[in-house]
Amino acid sequence: MLGEKVKYTLQSDYDHSEVRFLKKNKRVGMLMDELLQNPCRLYESRHFCEKYGIAKSSLSEDIKLINDILQENGSGCVESIQGAGGGIRYIPGISAERIRRLQEGLIEALSDTTRMLGGKYLYTSDIMFNGQFIADMARTFAQKFHSLGADYVVTVETKGIGIAAQTAYMLGLPLVVIRREAKYSEGSTVSINYFSGSTERIQKMSIAKRAVEPGRKAIIIDDFMRGGGSLKGIQDILGEFDVETVGIGVAIEAGFPEKKKVKDYVSILIIDEIDEENHVISVRPNETII
Amino acid sequence: MLGEKVKYTLQSDYDHSEVRFLKKNKRVGMLMDELLQNPCRLYESRHFCEKYGIAKSSLSEDIKLINDILQENGSGCVESIQGAGGGIRYIPGISAERIRRLQEGLIEALSDTTRMLGGKYLYTSDIMFNGQFIADMARTFAQKFHSLGADYVVTVETKGIGIAAQTAYMLGLPLVVIRREAKYSEGSTVSINYFSGSTERIQKMSIAKRAVEPGRKAIIIDDFMRGGGSLKGIQDILGEFDVETVGIGVAIEAGFPEKKKVKDYVSILIIDEIDEENHVISVRPNETII
Repeated sequence: MLGEKVKYTLQSDYDHSEVRFLKKNKRVGMLMDELLQNPCRLYESRHFCEKYGIAKSSLSEDIKLINDILQENGSGCVESIQGAGGGIRYIPGISAERIRRLQEGLIEALSDTTRMLGGKYLYTSDIMFNGQFIADMARTFAQKFHSLGADYVVTVETKGIGIAAQTAYMLGLPLVVIRREAKYSEGSTVSINYFSGSTERIQKMSIAKRAVEPGRKAIIIDDFMRGGGSLKGIQDILGEFDVETVGIGVAIEAGFPEKKKVKDYVSILIIDEIDEENHVISVRPNETII
Repeated sequence: MLGEKVKYTLQSDYDHSEVRFLKKNKRVGMLMDELLQNPCRLYESRHFCEKYGIAKSSLSEDIKLINDILQENGSGCVESIQGAGGGIRYIPGISAERIRRLQEGLIEALSDTTRMLGGKYLYTSDIMFNGQFIADMARTFAQKFHSLGADYVVTVETKGIGIAAQTAYMLGLPLVVIRREAKYSEGSTVSINYFSGSTERIQKMSIAKRAVEPGRKAIIIDDFMRGGGSLKGIQDILGEFDVETVGIGVAIEAGFPEKKKVKDYVSILIIDEIDEENHVISVRPNETII
């Protein structure tokens, strides 16, 4: 797939010999920095043994320590896969405690009634493009979806792109952005029309033919779901390429309507009511994501 | 500004007492993980001294070690600001060696002539949404712009959003996304028309009134610049709010036309020619960014 075509990997920045025989705490730090910067990338043990001039046994000790550090910080874990084709990789995660804090932060921001735009619309662009919110939402989705064997993270422009891009990075996967209008710069595209509950209009979405390959798997990430029409649309347009949707994550889910056009999705927050008359926005955390 | 309204900070996930008297190498790792996850966030020394039950002197030792690790890995540095209002923060960076590798990776990907769409257009969406490319381009821009005292990172939808969002995260700043069409969900907006050299058409862009505050400073990040019309447009629309542009970063700059509508921009790559007849795409690294 194209994602592979453009994949390039971060190698060490210096002659290996320079960093041999480092003191343990410095070595552990350098190892951790490299792992954290390459989420879900599988490294052969040899890579680190040669780079730091250490035996497999010392590497195992270092990895165990890094794993303890990450788990204690609620930042994920280091997975060691034994045997041929095995290796070491960092899997981003987030603790239940940190998800709760994320939810509290989002709820505080969303409860600001000056966000009300009328027609039960809320201004949320600043939230969806806030770096710290994005980072922790992406960690939450990555923790949930890392084991699904997906090949892409997919979203539709515009407000979900920040979260989707960070989730793709955390999962080490390419991001595919579906456009509203077929753009010349996308080359030949496939388009579909779908009914959007939020806007109560027929809407269009369009995907570049070369963006995905048949038979692959996708995780869909979006900022908001009301009826699920646009998520269903993404599923359908991916289906046109025989790409299977294996997971759906949305930042905010509307409690209304109760019946959604997609199932098996996870959300971080649920908005139960936007009461414009009494200036109340009722938001609650989705407990099931913790 | 709104960015502040929605800011929430990552605190420690556990009772401080639990982590007192940690072995040094574990403590350093936990400290480093927290710093790396909160780029450009200023921490009071007290925060870490209390969290790990250590004296300022041991903290300084730990910080020095972390700084050595990051510098050796070409991942940035830890800045210690003395005195009142001072503290410790992680400033993301990238080594010259890694920028070169980024440029090589991008050039290899861009030289694929199947990207040619005609009319000197190239398909680049897969590159602009590739997580590893995004991460290192964002590091490059963050290293370049972190000291400009900007309040926002600004981009215009769609293909630059991934890079801009990651740059904003690295700088600890909110991202503002300018839309092509005024969307209802943006609330009241200000729109301008501008001449786009790439499309040779009058185009429109639109920004939410509540997205920025007068008197602030912005860094503009975009995926591609030909004549600079759209960047000029962003500068102008920000100017409508008395927001000053203090830096401009683009992933790819076209060598043609030589005269651009904006100055003082940095680019990572320069495309000199897209020769459709002979199937050649001439791309070179921009040496001045290193």
